[in-house]
Amino acid sequence: MRVELLTIGDELLLGFTLDTNGPFLARALAAMGVTVAHRASVGDDADAVARAIREALDRTGAVITTGGLGPTADDRTREAVAAAFGTTLVLDDAIADGLRALWRSRGFPGELPASNLRQAMVPQGATVLPNAHGSAPGLWLEDARGRWVAMVPGVPREMRGMWGDTLEPRVRARFGAGTTVVRSRTVRTTGISESQLADDLGELARGVHGLPLAYLPGVEGVDLRVTATGFPPDETERRLTAAADALLAVAGPHAYGLDDTDLAAVVLARCREKGLRLAVAESCTGGMLGMRLTAVPGSSDVLIGGVIAYDNVVKAAHLGVRALDIAEHGAVSELVARYMAHGARLRFGADIGVAITGVAGPGGGTEAKPVGTVWVAADLRGEVRAVTRRLPGDRHEVRQRAAQMALDLVRRGLEKGA
Amino acid sequence: MRVELLTIGDELLLGFTLDTNGPFLARALAAMGVTVAHRASVGDDADAVARAIREALDRTGAVITTGGLGPTADDRTREAVAAAFGTTLVLDDAIADGLRALWRSRGFPGELPASNLRQAMVPQGATVLPNAHGSAPGLWLEDARGRWVAMVPGVPREMRGMWGDTLEPRVRARFGAGTTVVRSRTVRTTGISESQLADDLGELARGVHGLPLAYLPGVEGVDLRVTATGFPPDETERRLTAAADALLAVAGPHAYGLDDTDLAAVVLARCREKGLRLAVAESCTGGMLGMRLTAVPGSSDVLIGGVIAYDNVVKAAHLGVRALDIAEHGAVSELVARYMAHGARLRFGADIGVAITGVAGPGGGTEAKPVGTVWVAADLRGEVRAVTRRLPGDRHEVRQRAAQMALDLVRRGLEKGA
Repeated sequence: MRVELLTIGDELLLGFTLDTNGPFLARALAAMGVTVAHRASVGDDADAVARAIREALDRTGAVITTGGLGPTADDRTREAVAAAFGTTLVLDDAIADGLRALWRSRGFPGELPASNLRQAMVPQGATVLPNAHGSAPGLWLEDARGRWVAMVPGVPREMRGMWGDTLEPRVRARFGAGTTVVRSRTVRTTGISESQLADDLGELARGVHGLPLAYLPGVEGVDLRVTATGFPPDETERRLTAAADALLAVAGPHAYGLDDTDLAAVVLARCREKGLRLAVAESCTGGMLGMRLTAVPGSSDVLIGGVIAYDNVVKAAHLGVRALDIAEHGAVSELVARYMAHGARLRFGADIGVAITGVAGPGGGTEAKPVGTVWVAADLRGEVRAVTRRLPGDRHEVRQRAAQMALDLVRRGLEKGA
Repeated sequence: MRVELLTIGDELLLGFTLDTNGPFLARALAAMGVTVAHRASVGDDADAVARAIREALDRTGAVITTGGLGPTADDRTREAVAAAFGTTLVLDDAIADGLRALWRSRGFPGELPASNLRQAMVPQGATVLPNAHGSAPGLWLEDARGRWVAMVPGVPREMRGMWGDTLEPRVRARFGAGTTVVRSRTVRTTGISESQLADDLGELARGVHGLPLAYLPGVEGVDLRVTATGFPPDETERRLTAAADALLAVAGPHAYGLDDTDLAAVVLARCREKGLRLAVAESCTGGMLGMRLTAVPGSSDVLIGGVIAYDNVVKAAHLGVRALDIAEHGAVSELVARYMAHGARLRFGADIGVAITGVAGPGGGTEAKPVGTVWVAADLRGEVRAVTRRLPGDRHEVRQRAAQMALDLVRRGLEKGA
């Protein structure tokens, strides 16, 4: 139950194109229980393609290629696969007729250009996979030992269409009904480091209920992901649930959800349950916290609005922070963060005000307040909490981490029962 | 002048992560005249990594790996590369000391967890490449035949930082100065469709000064990219400049810059030149416009701040839009957009107020104002302009397009000489 993916095209080696076909096929294969053992990209070079095909056949014996099936001279997949299988190209009359019909139906003048007939040349013995989404058909070639290569176009829309129409059923038939599946579950944490989590997990770090564990640190925190491979569906589900429960127990208050859970959506849901409305006051994040909250459809029943208090004048005029306090403590200080949160709550008639002020960089750092220094504060119906952190990363990352930190302060405050 | 890239991580094989490191390195290498001959991805499996390294050494003899250098048990790159070179891992005292110092400087309590010391184990004979952007250093290992592997972390920010700091100079020294290069130039346009551009370009659409042209439509507009391959450096530069000039002439007022130019940075620069200050009022974008402006370092001399006017109450209380006008015209209307922009300008003491109100979806659409309907307005010292558009895409995309549309309205207003 193993396959390799080979994506073909100079674009991929020059870095102009992000390969989205590989991830699409990888997810689709994983969902049916087929493991992607290896992914590679080579250019529009027949020798390199043939060599990559030979290596993949030796390693795994099952390859899906994308790209290099078009009509132009730099589309070399057909001849390269034929070479790797030790066979030659022959004209497929059905494809040629189809191309001629397509040419006429699109209203182009004259005869089909000869170059387009390249697409009708197929390795001897190949099965043609119809393409209802474009002009280049796919191909399936297999040798006497049962090793196979499936070739599909590289245009993502055509590739995805063909996967559903013809390739997915073929791969499924090939491997039998997927009796085993690959599935993951993620526990999302924030406010704790990867190494601290590893220490807290102790023995579990080597595997949870027999499932391997991966740490995925990012600007929103550290995700813990367990993956079940090769179990029957029921067993997969049972193990994933038990593993997630074990991880949630260790992560405790640092865990805020599973899988794709967004912390902004968690905060909105908690507020909604309690009938609380929210307002924001943002300095260094400049609107990012508001953007995250309003990215969630239906956020308008919780979020009233907020102030982008970028200039200190705005902190005073629109949030009621005293200019004197800013002068004495600095705009990035506990006191100013607290007054910003308080001002947002009062001036927007909200139950909760949440504020961010910090030094996002690259300039503006001092010895006492280096780049990355952030204060966030939350006023929950008059109870004000504030925390500070020195966040790593560039300007964008500091701002992302600061927005997450502010959301997390509200979440933890609400869980304490405000 | 050939290198291979190997990206390591289960993430990449399961399709959970788009590989952005590969394209970054490929572009950077191409720009210095080094060809990427092959790209591959394998999982966190020491045998698979070692095998991939051996194959790459046989093919090309020069490999850059990303990922698998972290502190946890699934970080297997060090041991796999050691195995491929037939050597073992040894503790590097300098790295260990550095990790301990970093631990203390971040204010974590207690001693460095033992698991973190994995990062100090290096293949015997490897050169340590310092990492000023994170805790895992990079490594360079070379055999007696001059074949080499450079290992850098998989976190994109760290990888990019290390490339500039240490890896790029090493690779350059290795290969000497490149003689031919692959380089692109992009003309960024917004407010005009791909097909309209193609019509306006006429014959140029088939190639500009002998360079192939690509259309890259996205949420910020349509980028036009020309690519020069295989010319000497002088000739490359000459052709790219001539091609960009030709494209700029056709695109006219729709073009706002070259290459990575950000429209928010263009608007900020124009305002700065004219000594104008800016305030924003955002409804459906909820802070995204403010976030884009404040993403640009140094934006604080132009951007005063703004209001996230999500609830209509905020449009009235903080921007002075009459509740009556909202009731009669709807929150998504030309009148409300104009008053929001005007209110932002007056209440923040700015020269320019810019406002966005729209139906981002998925809910909230009506027959008269379907999902995607957006009004943006700009008040430039009392001269108010407003435009509407029905934007395609999902909630996120509509919001991104709306923010770009608002920035572009300000840009065009400033170019008319406000």
